[in-house]
Amino acid sequence: MRSFSVFPAFLLFLGPCVVALWPLPTQISTGTTALRLSADLQISLDGVRNAPADLRDAVARTRDFLRRDKLQLLVPDRGASLKSRITSAPLLRSLRVTLTGTEPTRPIAEEAIAAIETRQEGYTLNVPADGSAATLTATSTLGLFRGLTTFSQLWYDLDGDTYTVQAPFAITDAPKYVYRGFMLDTSRNYFPVADLKRTLDAMSWVKINTLHWHIVDSHSFPLVVPGFEHLSRLGAYNAASVYTVADVRELVQYAAVRGIDILVEVDTPGHTSVLHKAHPEHIACFEASPWTRYANEPPAGQLRLAAPATINFTASLLTSVAGLFPSKFFSTGGDEINVNCYQDDPATQAELQKQGKNLEQALDTFTQVTHKALQDIGKTTVVWEEMVLNHPVTLSNNTVAMVWISSANAQAVARRGHRLIHAASDFFYLDCGGGGWVGNHVTGNSWCDPFKTWQKAYSFNPTANLSPTEARLVLGGQQLLWAEQSGPSNLDNIVWPRAAASAEVFWSGPGGDGQAALSRLHDLAYRFVKRGVRAIPLQPEWCALRPGACDLNA
Amino acid sequence: MRSFSVFPAFLLFLGPCVVALWPLPTQISTGTTALRLSADLQISLDGVRNAPADLRDAVARTRDFLRRDKLQLLVPDRGASLKSRITSAPLLRSLRVTLTGTEPTRPIAEEAIAAIETRQEGYTLNVPADGSAATLTATSTLGLFRGLTTFSQLWYDLDGDTYTVQAPFAITDAPKYVYRGFMLDTSRNYFPVADLKRTLDAMSWVKINTLHWHIVDSHSFPLVVPGFEHLSRLGAYNAASVYTVADVRELVQYAAVRGIDILVEVDTPGHTSVLHKAHPEHIACFEASPWTRYANEPPAGQLRLAAPATINFTASLLTSVAGLFPSKFFSTGGDEINVNCYQDDPATQAELQKQGKNLEQALDTFTQVTHKALQDIGKTTVVWEEMVLNHPVTLSNNTVAMVWISSANAQAVARRGHRLIHAASDFFYLDCGGGGWVGNHVTGNSWCDPFKTWQKAYSFNPTANLSPTEARLVLGGQQLLWAEQSGPSNLDNIVWPRAAASAEVFWSGPGGDGQAALSRLHDLAYRFVKRGVRAIPLQPEWCALRPGACDLNA
Repeated sequence: MRSFSVFPAFLLFLGPCVVALWPLPTQISTGTTALRLSADLQISLDGVRNAPADLRDAVARTRDFLRRDKLQLLVPDRGASLKSRITSAPLLRSLRVTLTGTEPTRPIAEEAIAAIETRQEGYTLNVPADGSAATLTATSTLGLFRGLTTFSQLWYDLDGDTYTVQAPFAITDAPKYVYRGFMLDTSRNYFPVADLKRTLDAMSWVKINTLHWHIVDSHSFPLVVPGFEHLSRLGAYNAASVYTVADVRELVQYAAVRGIDILVEVDTPGHTSVLHKAHPEHIACFEASPWTRYANEPPAGQLRLAAPATINFTASLLTSVAGLFPSKFFSTGGDEINVNCYQDDPATQAELQKQGKNLEQALDTFTQVTHKALQDIGKTTVVWEEMVLNHPVTLSNNTVAMVWISSANAQAVARRGHRLIHAASDFFYLDCGGGGWVGNHVTGNSWCDPFKTWQKAYSFNPTANLSPTEARLVLGGQQLLWAEQSGPSNLDNIVWPRAAASAEVFWSGPGGDGQAALSRLHDLAYRFVKRGVRAIPLQPEWCALRPGACDLNA
Repeated sequence: MRSFSVFPAFLLFLGPCVVALWPLPTQISTGTTALRLSADLQISLDGVRNAPADLRDAVARTRDFLRRDKLQLLVPDRGASLKSRITSAPLLRSLRVTLTGTEPTRPIAEEAIAAIETRQEGYTLNVPADGSAATLTATSTLGLFRGLTTFSQLWYDLDGDTYTVQAPFAITDAPKYVYRGFMLDTSRNYFPVADLKRTLDAMSWVKINTLHWHIVDSHSFPLVVPGFEHLSRLGAYNAASVYTVADVRELVQYAAVRGIDILVEVDTPGHTSVLHKAHPEHIACFEASPWTRYANEPPAGQLRLAAPATINFTASLLTSVAGLFPSKFFSTGGDEINVNCYQDDPATQAELQKQGKNLEQALDTFTQVTHKALQDIGKTTVVWEEMVLNHPVTLSNNTVAMVWISSANAQAVARRGHRLIHAASDFFYLDCGGGGWVGNHVTGNSWCDPFKTWQKAYSFNPTANLSPTEARLVLGGQQLLWAEQSGPSNLDNIVWPRAAASAEVFWSGPGGDGQAALSRLHDLAYRFVKRGVRAIPLQPEWCALRPGACDLNA
């Protein structure tokens, strides 16, 4: 039995016996004994007082994965040479799940959306080699859920036997960072609810705990907001391309029982062109031409941030949206505010003159009013980095900033004392490298070329250039999909398995051995495909079966 | 009624009335009259003597598309404002199909695989505006099939009505180039037969007439070859990841009835590492390390081209494979021959010394013998450009060369007098820009960055830098998918709608207006999705509904 912490170099030499968990646990020891999983494995919740329904459902899903994954070992013979060891191996017949501590048992869904700094996601998992009961222990149902997720990744299939040849396992695990996210833009192109559910499933398999839902933008307004139904009626691409209140409720629950909080974003004051359809009075530079003067991408249009009526409208809208999402977090966006839009807008100029303010002062008022409305209902505001770095607006100290323009800006954000989430385009933007999407531009490629490989994301250091004090402000990070050239057709494969890279960086900590990670990531990608998520092959299968053989200097 | 040839600039200004055909016909005139398609449209083959079964099947598929596509017009209201015009429009109740000429009627499948210079793909299609019968006329069943394909793209759906508002149509069409292909690599990763069929369907919808099937390579040997069954038994990734003789027969037929010839490639003497599993005696530098010295990608391994036994083995193998594919074309590959592999191979060095030959002389013998074996059974050999440009080998004059390293090399190939197929990596490689796939290389991106956008492919000029005599040697061209990072998960969306770009360049001729093309390409992509091919959205839907609005200077 070998004992080691994350990322020992010699993992590479274990060959077929590399543990294929993703993200890698904080501590894991494995053995070399074969163990089979009984077809009628009992996952007992006797050790959980008042086991909640969502934990029981998680157990049922785990049993389903164990039965259906049928993933073969990624070695040239797919495990055939292990046949006799497997067929003569002891049978594991039960996994005993225990919730420790004295707190009343809460559902996973409740723990998953609690204040992020209070969540407990750790667990301990032991799988003996002799067939005696395995044990899973945690201080929270959320932790138990993470442990079940790990348990489901330990096993392979050979001719119908579900087995491992690395028993016993002793795993002690907890995340390094509290925020591990994935951002999806559903405005440029619409994604049906089924696609979001499948994405939430996939996220949960790599222990991502936040869906940052960039739900509306200038292109379309798919969200049905109570009291603001006209926005989606006029602003959705069509009547079917909406998220109803019932859809949102269902998705919030679907996410929460999978350990995922939904951080919704209503981007303001920019990225709001679509609101013009219902409220022309609130939008400046609507579809103004040339768009390159008024926006980073077409169509142009921004909230008339100086107008009191527009500020009130925005605060009411944000408040109503916030009521749909129980998360503590709410993002008001704040990126890419275009100054020309307001300079050329007579209404805004008149308003500024009337109030005796300049644009930045008006933005400050806009931000304070809209943020206060959210804070009054218990929300922690989240903004893109420009609101901290580029505009002299007053932000509450607990406002969280997302660093996107460049990872180098994390330091400046931290120096302002704000907690931050890494979402840097130079590491984490999944759309980069896919070619330019602007029309009539033969040689155009994406603004953030090149393609951000999983290796690039995986190489990220969350505390680079940060002092220890600044480093403590890092909540975590995420990969992001802007959907200019994405839709249901390519969602799975533009995201997976790449987005697992940040999931591991922010769970296991940075500095992982990319070489050893690759074979685990292959394993994950093939397992995703087995579970109905269309992850791409990262290499020829020949390479996937031969760890290291396709490395640069092999 | 407007009459115009391909790519008139004013197409752009027709707004919702742009004809969304892809590829654009040679000549088309359209009107502004609304016309509905009767739900029981009769497609009559009375004008075809002895109408073959595959033509009847093509008619049935056409009727299916007309019923099921239900594609809405790509305008902001999706055609709603046309409602009263549509509901009061005359009904088109029949399409009369006529085969002209005095030749006996042949099945599509027979015409599709005939010698490429003899094929007739042209047709004439007239759709009157008053509901009187439409007519489709051609001199071949293959031409009739192309016309049916066009007919199926004329229609939109509004509330269950299938309609156009551009009747009457008068279309006279024929391709500019005889070869319009798509290449798929099924060795790096395996694609099930169902994926190939779906791809053949999609190809036929844009009148691509050749699948260049790069069926085997160093990574795996999925083809079951009569008399050489051990190659796939030992060289396929697994027993299920093979193309059986029955699969190939089925695919050849599936392609042919859709107007598609299958040009199979067995790459030699490089890209053959996998043959070592069955025949170590024929492979030099097998999986030699470092692979960077011996191959452009792992694993290394090349046929011992100097050995008479290896030459005979290769000739027999190619002959047997050729027997599976009725196409006149057969590619022996010939790219990326690595010299170090042979320099460091004692067996090859000994053989060369014994024969008193240098490596190029041995390659000449190898090529002459293997090509003669194919020519003796009626095949026209196809090679990658190096066999023409980089090696002093004797090739028959009718050997066709595929230009891949750079489009600039077409001129040199043409100057050697060889017919050529454009397959240039700088325009047509679909895998570029997807990030490097070699392991442990954090900053590695694809060797052929950047991503080749559809615009780039569409901008291609097949006769650039060629004299009129040289230009006549251009058979056509194709886009290509090397599958290092592709599999069933992303096949559709890495290929479509991009690969339609070359389909139009080589059918309609180059120089198309990219701006006008974009809205037609959107239409095609959405139609593909309706038909079950997961094409990506090329832009936000907002842009797709507003032609030109997302252009660079809009």
